[in-house]
Amino acid sequence: MTTKAVEFAQENEGRFVEELKALLRIPSVSTAPEHAGDVRKAAEFVAAELTRIGMENVRLIETATAERPGGHPLVYADWLKLPGAPTVLCYGHYDVQPAEPLDEWKSPPFEPTERDGNIYARGAVDDKGQMWMHVKALESLFAAGAGKLPVNVRVTVEGEEEVGGEGIAAFVREHGEQLKADVALVSDTEMFAPDLPTLCVGLRGMIYTEIEARGARTDLHSGMYGGAAPNPFVALSQVIAQLKDADGKILIPGFYDKVAVPTDAELKAWRALPFDEEHYRETEVGSVSLTGEPGYSVLERTWARPTVDVHGMPGGFIGAGAKTVIPAKAVAKVSMRLVPDMTPAESFAQYKAYVESLCPKGIVLEVRLIHSGDPIVVSTDNIYVKAATDAMHAVFGKETVFVRGGGSIPIVGDFVRELKIPTVLMGFGLPDDNLHAPNEKFHLANFYRGIESIIGFLIGVGA
Amino acid sequence: MTTKAVEFAQENEGRFVEELKALLRIPSVSTAPEHAGDVRKAAEFVAAELTRIGMENVRLIETATAERPGGHPLVYADWLKLPGAPTVLCYGHYDVQPAEPLDEWKSPPFEPTERDGNIYARGAVDDKGQMWMHVKALESLFAAGAGKLPVNVRVTVEGEEEVGGEGIAAFVREHGEQLKADVALVSDTEMFAPDLPTLCVGLRGMIYTEIEARGARTDLHSGMYGGAAPNPFVALSQVIAQLKDADGKILIPGFYDKVAVPTDAELKAWRALPFDEEHYRETEVGSVSLTGEPGYSVLERTWARPTVDVHGMPGGFIGAGAKTVIPAKAVAKVSMRLVPDMTPAESFAQYKAYVESLCPKGIVLEVRLIHSGDPIVVSTDNIYVKAATDAMHAVFGKETVFVRGGGSIPIVGDFVRELKIPTVLMGFGLPDDNLHAPNEKFHLANFYRGIESIIGFLIGVGA
Repeated sequence: MTTKAVEFAQENEGRFVEELKALLRIPSVSTAPEHAGDVRKAAEFVAAELTRIGMENVRLIETATAERPGGHPLVYADWLKLPGAPTVLCYGHYDVQPAEPLDEWKSPPFEPTERDGNIYARGAVDDKGQMWMHVKALESLFAAGAGKLPVNVRVTVEGEEEVGGEGIAAFVREHGEQLKADVALVSDTEMFAPDLPTLCVGLRGMIYTEIEARGARTDLHSGMYGGAAPNPFVALSQVIAQLKDADGKILIPGFYDKVAVPTDAELKAWRALPFDEEHYRETEVGSVSLTGEPGYSVLERTWARPTVDVHGMPGGFIGAGAKTVIPAKAVAKVSMRLVPDMTPAESFAQYKAYVESLCPKGIVLEVRLIHSGDPIVVSTDNIYVKAATDAMHAVFGKETVFVRGGGSIPIVGDFVRELKIPTVLMGFGLPDDNLHAPNEKFHLANFYRGIESIIGFLIGVGA
Repeated sequence: MTTKAVEFAQENEGRFVEELKALLRIPSVSTAPEHAGDVRKAAEFVAAELTRIGMENVRLIETATAERPGGHPLVYADWLKLPGAPTVLCYGHYDVQPAEPLDEWKSPPFEPTERDGNIYARGAVDDKGQMWMHVKALESLFAAGAGKLPVNVRVTVEGEEEVGGEGIAAFVREHGEQLKADVALVSDTEMFAPDLPTLCVGLRGMIYTEIEARGARTDLHSGMYGGAAPNPFVALSQVIAQLKDADGKILIPGFYDKVAVPTDAELKAWRALPFDEEHYRETEVGSVSLTGEPGYSVLERTWARPTVDVHGMPGGFIGAGAKTVIPAKAVAKVSMRLVPDMTPAESFAQYKAYVESLCPKGIVLEVRLIHSGDPIVVSTDNIYVKAATDAMHAVFGKETVFVRGGGSIPIVGDFVRELKIPTVLMGFGLPDDNLHAPNEKFHLANFYRGIESIIGFLIGVGA
């Protein structure tokens, strides 16, 4: 059956890409209220295709509530006609990050463009393209199986992954029985290197916060009031400068207390990966030097150590030229990546207390939690991981490497906690795919190999 | 003649205000390239009125050059028919600060609105309303003098005061002989308190700069790269936090070396002014406490001590919600107020060298000077100051107080340096007029008293 489904997929590659382009044209930016209609349009696009290929019980589950009026719908579908066979819960997301800064895109973010074997668009790899691999693998299996799948499948595709995923998290918490499955399949990660089949077995968690600093009642002229009025940007800078020392060590009291050290076997495996820090600095980061906590390798720092980053500091005057304003308030968007066994609740409490203790003179600080996600480590010793590595071996002809991811996929933690199931993180992005940045892309060869690997995985789980 | 001119002014107050409103409706924001047409429209408005009232040689002097293609025109007019009599150079500006944040205005910034005896609009007091006092005083004097003024007058009204005034500065440097005069009159300052006639005899200078921090080559995902990629906002925060200590003392080496201490007489006079720091904190600033250099009063800190302020930090993600980006670059808009005998060139060099010495790991810093202005102290022992205090005494029935201003009016330094003339800074703003902030206003009673005081001053200088 694998052969037949893979043949179907290969014969239909061109159409699959055209369908993906249509989905990529929908600017489903979940954080932007003005794109709420586009986000729904993307949900309806995915639901319509799930219906067309033969999935059942396809529906949009509304997640908006009185507290969260802007919640985006969750797409659900299932096919559960093999009693006694395992059930795979396929997860993906149809929402995307904002595309700004627009002027750095070589082709417009919502006009998908093929160049050099890649498809360029916001969401190409994160996660519309990878989610589409699931849909197309299922279509190929339906075609090969004359309308039947080799395994029971539920599909959930959310529209809030880029804004914290509260809608699906609440659904998993409150209606977990409707998602009963044996294993989850998530394709929202990357391969360690081109042609190197990779399973991600650990993810960092995160807390995303805002610190608002308020000084004067209203904006003031810096000539008249400079020297007497508190400056919120100076205050935020003073706070941020005390979150880490100059070397990159986090100074929040207690922040490292729960950090679990990777096993010796894991550290040894990481050292064996094809990774060169200088090459990484030059080709991926492009900065004059790398930064971060002293005493740890880049892979340890990005996979197994917590971090603090600042994403933007809204407020004041940001136009061209000069405006001599002391703004009444300013905000810093600050996030922290967490690793096992840290918890968002405890880490946020430590951070908030510390920031408040640093409050500069004349300033009132407010520390807000925007969203959070648990760090997780996926167990490697189970049959589903075996099915995944076998499937990828058949496609790539190579052994799979086990890595961790520095990013956060909070839903994986929810699946562990609420559904008590492991997640197979089988992703086909590449390190230079520009996630969350201008010129996001997806390598089309990986799109095709991803579909074939998922076909193999679903057949393997059902076997 | 004073009586006749003042009577004319009083009879025409209503029309004068309506004319001012028409000028305020033109959004002549000089820093915004998209408003270049409006800036020119405001220049033409002023020129047309100067022609109508009887001024001669009215023209727009273009200041745009190959290096400064966005330069805004300088309005010039004169009336020089009294050989042997002194010449007064009236200076004002028709450009305004940006109006943002728009949602904090009670009435739209470019729809002038009267409330409680005030006129609210961007530019109401800074400086369209005050500049219009000059024009209306001249009109009243022409009317009272049957087409003749009591003194020779040149008028210059620039359109770049809010962006550094480079156009008029260059004109003063290169064509100073065309502005030959005995004294300059500038109304761009404020009264120390309502009903307290005030002359400003000192102004701080400034350097307005940008620090650009560049880290990675492109925006990166903070999950994947957090812990290895340099963060420009963290870097800028580290730099800014080292510009001043926690108490507000500036840490730039050598920055205080040239600071002149006010005379004992000046300090004594300031202590006698009706000023209460707690009242100022509560009513003007509205912060939980005041800040600034320890050991100096608020008036000393805002008039006679240098400062550092941050006005905005463009870059990264500033929208609502969360975006987990490590931006490739970020900018801090940082300005410093200077006092006699500091010089912009030396202060900028000290600042630039210090900032560069603080450059955090992984970051490339670029320090740019956007514009600058000299600090000045105006001599009080001359006949023009006497003419001004006499004129204000006649209108207000009170003795004039001598203060300094914390802001910068670079042109005053240019007049001293290039034209070798003193400037009378006779301003009629109020401390709560919201200069450079939302809900800028001008108290109409002060608009009328300003016109009458200027009538008296011009007659006094000509007598």
